[in-house]
Amino acid sequence: ADAFDPTTHPHRRFNPLTNEHVLVSPHRTKRPWLGQTEAPQPTNLPQYDPACYLCPGNSRSSGDKNDTYDHTMVFRNDFAAVLPPPGPLGPAAPHPLLATQPVQGDCDVIIFHPRHDLTLAHLPAEDIEKIIEEWVSIYHKRGTQEGIKYVQIFENKGAMMGCSNPHPHGQVWSLSEVPTIPSIELASLKRYASNPDVSSSEAPRGPNGEPCLLCEYVHYERSVPQDEGRIVVQNEHWVALVPWWATWPFEILVLPHHCHIPSLAHLTPEEKTSFAQILSAMTIRYDNLFSSSFAYSMGIHQRPVPAKEGADDEDDVAHLHLHFFPPLLRSASVKKFIVGFELMAEAQRDLTPEQAAQKLRACSDVHYST
Amino acid sequence: ADAFDPTTHPHRRFNPLTNEHVLVSPHRTKRPWLGQTEAPQPTNLPQYDPACYLCPGNSRSSGDKNDTYDHTMVFRNDFAAVLPPPGPLGPAAPHPLLATQPVQGDCDVIIFHPRHDLTLAHLPAEDIEKIIEEWVSIYHKRGTQEGIKYVQIFENKGAMMGCSNPHPHGQVWSLSEVPTIPSIELASLKRYASNPDVSSSEAPRGPNGEPCLLCEYVHYERSVPQDEGRIVVQNEHWVALVPWWATWPFEILVLPHHCHIPSLAHLTPEEKTSFAQILSAMTIRYDNLFSSSFAYSMGIHQRPVPAKEGADDEDDVAHLHLHFFPPLLRSASVKKFIVGFELMAEAQRDLTPEQAAQKLRACSDVHYST
Ligand SMILES: O=P(O)(O)O[C@H]1O[C@H](CO)[C@@H](O)[C@H](O)[C@H]1O
Ligand SMILES: O=P(O)(O)O[C@H]1O[C@H](CO)[C@@H](O)[C@H](O)[C@H]1O
Repeated sequence: ADAFDPTTHPHRRFNPLTNEHVLVSPHRTKRPWLGQTEAPQPTNLPQYDPACYLCPGNSRSSGDKNDTYDHTMVFRNDFAAVLPPPGPLGPAAPHPLLATQPVQGDCDVIIFHPRHDLTLAHLPAEDIEKIIEEWVSIYHKRGTQEGIKYVQIFENKGAMMGCSNPHPHGQVWSLSEVPTIPSIELASLKRYASNPDVSSSEAPRGPNGEPCLLCEYVHYERSVPQDEGRIVVQNEHWVALVPWWATWPFEILVLPHHCHIPSLAHLTPEEKTSFAQILSAMTIRYDNLFSSSFAYSMGIHQRPVPAKEGADDEDDVAHLHLHFFPPLLRSASVKKFIVGFELMAEAQRDLTPEQAAQKLRACSDVHYST
Repeated sequence: ADAFDPTTHPHRRFNPLTNEHVLVSPHRTKRPWLGQTEAPQPTNLPQYDPACYLCPGNSRSSGDKNDTYDHTMVFRNDFAAVLPPPGPLGPAAPHPLLATQPVQGDCDVIIFHPRHDLTLAHLPAEDIEKIIEEWVSIYHKRGTQEGIKYVQIFENKGAMMGCSNPHPHGQVWSLSEVPTIPSIELASLKRYASNPDVSSSEAPRGPNGEPCLLCEYVHYERSVPQDEGRIVVQNEHWVALVPWWATWPFEILVLPHHCHIPSLAHLTPEEKTSFAQILSAMTIRYDNLFSSSFAYSMGIHQRPVPAKEGADDEDDVAHLHLHFFPPLLRSASVKKFIVGFELMAEAQRDLTPEQAAQKLRACSDVHYST
């Protein structure tokens, strides 16, 4: 048999955060696509849309009127998936397999900017910094609220990703339970932290000198020659890379590389500035890849909530990071379907993460529309 | 606070197969939908399409010509995600977090019927039985092949679910590793089997008298008054129900209820006949729900491969079942988006499983097109 070539031979890679594998089938990129194509994202949106419930001064379905805000605005989601406490106790389970766990919490919306037609990729870094400040403050506000165990900040961008309004905005769901995925990730970070032998001596470590899975990983990625590896863009504090275990075609992980940072609450002003810069640089490349407004879901994973007086500091093994899951695969209209085998058996991708990173690195750092 | 009402109060349910929670937010069904809608499924397809690579007698992209088959036909996928052995060994990992596991195997396509325009919902049960026979024989053929550890049979139906050809067909990916999800499910079944106290005395048990999670679950579901519970349709051997832990709006689990059945290889002729009948009955209801050809991904989970001489019979704790994951939520054109919170934190649903089962039960058992 030939020597192993990751761009030819099917193989599996392991995601150490979720403990799941991804099947990589690079030769499948040659398959012709005869299936469904996606509608193009709207272009030429107005700067202000009188029918948009997120534009400054307009009314929402609750009847509330938006402020004439001039950078960001936060409000409670009018169709929240969870409701504030108190709520009733759950019923007794009729069978042990059918237990009900009541959940309380809050759902907030963060409008990113007054302009209806802009996205992160169009905003100057200073405006992105104001969004980061909102993330920091809502993480503190909701995360210190009685009974809240996790603050999930995320953004659905593009109609393809279930976003029903192009006005730039994100969401925050704060819950009385740690949700499935952050809880699995946190357990993986704790397991890694408990094994002193796994980390290289040079990578940053956690607050008590424990190994950090993500600090170690990003340290290794930075040691790979930049034109061969998985890094798309980096700066003084942050790296944006296509992780070794990426499942979405152009998935990106954004994380700090210079030291261990448990949460948004730990960021210095300089780290916030460079954070805004890397988000700008990577979202511009996303748009440039297919000369379109690139759809994605983004989520921030970090310490579940800010440390409480006398609370368990074990959670400081969390290392702040953002996942970007964009669905497009081949062009502005052909996405990767997460269906069949992927839903029933295992994540699967065609393009290798290295090929994806290479394509994103090759994109200009100036937005195609300018 | 009021008494707990599952159709009003947000809560979580636990999926004992995958060990994941789902957040249920029933009051969100009131949310107006302003986002993307799906294109209608094609109607009035021809019985034979000269351009279809699955129709009898036509050529495929490999250059091979289809037989003029008269019920089902199986062939190797021309764009397989895995390739048969031998393959090269994987490279040494440059870092423990970046290990490569080569995978070999086969990808097959099963054409369900010569008619281009029919789906399971249109086929008489006798024709579905022929598809079941193909599943049985490919499970045996691939599963007894050297080095194969799992045979994943599945179907993507509808353009919305990544299916690029409406001609009725399914797929079979056979791999040299047990994929992530079947491996998690099998571990859950084994854990349940090892605890003698968890099962009711009346539910069927595994081959050595061990408790079976799914036999126990379906036994409980059958004890609930039929107009209140989650069962959509049942017959002598099989139940189709919306599981307590369903994440897709109209998700269905199909499984045998009268005894423990590890795999397709264990089915008697009578069980195959009633299997075909329940698949017909439930797919007709799916189509009738929104008077449209209902898209879904379907996957069969069972014993990874048929028992080998002298091999570990531990895997007989597997209980054959089929998952149907259909994306539609409100109408033939409005689907549930698995995005943002769902991808980053936890599965989430609006409609309760009980409400979904109720709507499916209320559908006629005669196809709307007849
Ligand atoms: O049937 P196809 O065209 O091979 O492919 C379809 O099923 C595969 C397995 O679920 C998916 O990976 C593809 O994204 C989907 O389009
Ligand atoms: O922003 P919306 O309209 O509340 O909703 C969007 O994000 C939610 C959280 O990811 C999803 O559950 C919805 O399916 C999606 O449409």
